[in-house]
Amino acid sequence: MTGGVQLPQAEADQRYEVFHTDCPARTVIDHVTSKWGVWVLISLRGGDLRFYELRESIRGISEKMLAQTLRGLVEDGLVRREVEPTTPPQVTYGLTEFGREVSEPLGDLLDRITQRLPSRGEG
Amino acid sequence: MTGGVQLPQAEADQRYEVFHTDCPARTVIDHVTSKWGVWVLISLRGGDLRFYELRESIRGISEKMLAQTLRGLVEDGLVRREVEPTTPPQVTYGLTEFGREVSEPLGDLLDRITQRLPSRGEG
Repeated sequence: MTGGVQLPQAEADQRYEVFHTDCPARTVIDHVTSKWGVWVLISLRGGDLRFYELRESIRGISEKMLAQTLRGLVEDGLVRREVEPTTPPQVTYGLTEFGREVSEPLGDLLDRITQRLPSRGEG
Repeated sequence: MTGGVQLPQAEADQRYEVFHTDCPARTVIDHVTSKWGVWVLISLRGGDLRFYELRESIRGISEKMLAQTLRGLVEDGLVRREVEPTTPPQVTYGLTEFGREVSEPLGDLLDRITQRLPSRGEG
């Protein structure tokens, strides 16, 4: 290894503070951008959904993974879980205000990527 | 399982087309929002970086994971890899135009999350 440009540690620390493994924002971002978190948040932008509706909308997700993903997002305060006292009880998931705020740039991300890529059927 | 609201399949297909596992956008989004992809893209927003600078800036990433993440992002056309013909050769990574476009909402996402969370030291 030879020299090269390297930021002094203090400057690097400031520049990349959020990249520290102990930064709380990093945990939330890891959940938001987890394999399935992004799809759950984008799905819920259209309105509240029941568990099985979410599962239907996100192809390829297992019940276990969906439950685990939802649990993380509820803990982070991004998704709220509402149980209706019917028989059997109906559980609905929706975005909190924070979740809505966070899902906006995800929607934007999705739009930018889909606009650039050829759709299936073309090419 | 009882009834409940469920979208007719054709309507669900249209609404969630990008959620299909065979949609090309889904692969790119999976790379972008992979455990480390998001941090590489955000790191490179500040300018081109060498491999070891990227590694320094993203705490907790292994060399192997960084190399793998960069390979995926280069394949997707989000990151460009430039080799300077020096001795030893220097390899620099930077965002392509597509990468810059995609990293914008990621920066936005990061800002929104960090603004909402208490910083370390408070609370």
